[in-house]
Amino acid sequence: MAAIEEDKLPLPPLNPAAAALEPSKIVDLWQLGAGREDLIALYVGEGDEATPDFITRAATRALAEGHTFYTPKRGLPELRLAIADYMARHFGADLKEERVTVTSSGMNAIMLTLQAILTPGANLVVPTPVWPNIISAAQIVGGQVKTLPQTALPEGGFHLDLDRLFATCDDNTAAIFLVSPSNPTGWVISEAEQHAVLDFCRSRGIWLIADEVYHRFVYDPARFPAGVAPSFLQIADPDDPLVVVNSFSKAWCMTGWRQGWLIHPAALGPVIGNLIEFNTSGGQSFLQYGCLAALTEGESFVAAQVERCGQAAELVYQGLSALPRVRLARPAGAFYSFFRVDGVDDSLAFAKRILADTGVGLAPGSAFGPGGEGHLRLCFAGTPGRLSTALERIGQHLS
Amino acid sequence: MAAIEEDKLPLPPLNPAAAALEPSKIVDLWQLGAGREDLIALYVGEGDEATPDFITRAATRALAEGHTFYTPKRGLPELRLAIADYMARHFGADLKEERVTVTSSGMNAIMLTLQAILTPGANLVVPTPVWPNIISAAQIVGGQVKTLPQTALPEGGFHLDLDRLFATCDDNTAAIFLVSPSNPTGWVISEAEQHAVLDFCRSRGIWLIADEVYHRFVYDPARFPAGVAPSFLQIADPDDPLVVVNSFSKAWCMTGWRQGWLIHPAALGPVIGNLIEFNTSGGQSFLQYGCLAALTEGESFVAAQVERCGQAAELVYQGLSALPRVRLARPAGAFYSFFRVDGVDDSLAFAKRILADTGVGLAPGSAFGPGGEGHLRLCFAGTPGRLSTALERIGQHLS
Repeated sequence: MAAIEEDKLPLPPLNPAAAALEPSKIVDLWQLGAGREDLIALYVGEGDEATPDFITRAATRALAEGHTFYTPKRGLPELRLAIADYMARHFGADLKEERVTVTSSGMNAIMLTLQAILTPGANLVVPTPVWPNIISAAQIVGGQVKTLPQTALPEGGFHLDLDRLFATCDDNTAAIFLVSPSNPTGWVISEAEQHAVLDFCRSRGIWLIADEVYHRFVYDPARFPAGVAPSFLQIADPDDPLVVVNSFSKAWCMTGWRQGWLIHPAALGPVIGNLIEFNTSGGQSFLQYGCLAALTEGESFVAAQVERCGQAAELVYQGLSALPRVRLARPAGAFYSFFRVDGVDDSLAFAKRILADTGVGLAPGSAFGPGGEGHLRLCFAGTPGRLSTALERIGQHLS
Repeated sequence: MAAIEEDKLPLPPLNPAAAALEPSKIVDLWQLGAGREDLIALYVGEGDEATPDFITRAATRALAEGHTFYTPKRGLPELRLAIADYMARHFGADLKEERVTVTSSGMNAIMLTLQAILTPGANLVVPTPVWPNIISAAQIVGGQVKTLPQTALPEGGFHLDLDRLFATCDDNTAAIFLVSPSNPTGWVISEAEQHAVLDFCRSRGIWLIADEVYHRFVYDPARFPAGVAPSFLQIADPDDPLVVVNSFSKAWCMTGWRQGWLIHPAALGPVIGNLIEFNTSGGQSFLQYGCLAALTEGESFVAAQVERCGQAAELVYQGLSALPRVRLARPAGAFYSFFRVDGVDDSLAFAKRILADTGVGLAPGSAFGPGGEGHLRLCFAGTPGRLSTALERIGQHLS
């Protein structure tokens, strides 16, 4: 190796959009907590249970059978069919296989979609608080992001003001990005709101990207008798300007698998296929056999998980409501409690302090964009014992 | 579902860079051949042997042990250390862990690197013939690509004219992209050429992206006594403007795993980490345990595979040289024969015809950019029996 010269030149410039990216504040906390013995990690969107056996067995079998070669870029045909069938079962959506693409995680599904539709200089309209990765992904692609804080209700919880949403769109708006059930707020869009948003996008020639990753996690049987949050696929035509993002991560405890999917107009399929080829060259077929098992054998597992999350939602709601300075609403969906603490105006510092003092890891509300400051996000997907301990520790800290 | 209106609006516009992408011509052929019973698929860069047991066992064990949660974005710390150790063993490179990042395939490593350093409007200089995905990835990021055909030698094979390479760079050049051993030509850079290129990049403030995915596949013990192709890491300082792309796909028969790695200046680590978070949010820890086994227990497997490929290289060289109209050189590295057929000026049509007539799948030279037309690429990583049959069929077709 050559000696390092003292008058060494600095590194050549980086792409300013990449250099300007802020690390995820959630990952920040996650790194801070890593390795701590008494840690109860409720900052990340996953529980504490590993992937169920019936899924890992299917992947293990495929691996042993030698499914270790390059695979079709848009996913195994049988998995794409199974996804179409799953969507038909739960949403009555009649999907051709050509509208289904398997992706390397929900995040990757979002990045591919943004690469496909976000022309540099165009903007993406995103109601907040929202999972912040969406905004960063748009910045990498060279798009502008116009955020729009949802209205915080006095009793806790959030409301989406449709007139303000539409007024935020302009001639350079390429897409509206909606997350329902919402990470972090637990808000779930109504069917009337869906119609209004889809009609607006149709008439204005704007894409609608609907992140429905938490579609299984709803807790009010009166409002959601079918046990799923409403999907835009229930009201859309096949050629509507609609892209639905989904993932295996949440409903099947597969966060570490990095498997997601997209439903899109058929015309977008070849474009997304090309983007996959040049981003990752596709996924792992042996893992996709695990995904297939999730869809075809997973209903009782999902039902039990959602029931446990519903109980956890209530446990956390009761526990946090009883604390001084805390305001929150029952989440309609997803698996987070997004609660306000009066007097907190630096939620990142507050989250770090709680972590240091109690070992409980919460995500700071400021991580989720405008409207999030003053809040904390607690993931209640974990097993009940840990949640009770966490609530006790938070209670002591706040008292 | 609403009725489809007859006066339905067309879909909103797509990002022109995405819409303009051409599908990979290799994937084109691959799809054409899929399902054919007598197919001998030599168009894709993989052999016909599944991943070896000692690797799949390690991943299976990790999966059974519940390593199914979110994982550090830049890879498991123990895998990053093992990669640093592997590079030290084979190249004498002294790497700190902070210079190592695990990626979701070599393709993903390239995309992340281009996102990090290719400012929109800047250009990437790429000698061709080259694996075409590099050019498409740069286009997605909004960069320009300046290709530079390597000089075809009369006796077969290619030569890189350094003066022309340097003259192709201009004030907007962000990076030079070099693949050695070359896919598809088998060309391997010399140490003198390495010094010239690195010095040029240093003095001009240009990034050097070195794709060394085929570093284990070299066939001339006199030229490569250590059994590896030269790596730029052998001559570079830690803060040189150098990014080395690598992958588990080729040396360990893991194409379907989508696992790669990057070696970069330490200062680039946090930027790449952010880009991973917002592209895929990281990889699969249970698969990374398989990668760990590949690096720590894989030497005898790799040695046997490279020896077999060396024999296959010779078999294919002898077989093709004997055919009328065919010109080629022995490849110094990688696992392709890139041969010229006199009279062929549409290699895509020719490859489709060979596939239709004989069931042998070859990649068309035109897929690899300027200088590739008139050639065909044959992957000889497969087991010998299939190669002999393929050579017979190609011979009959050409006679």
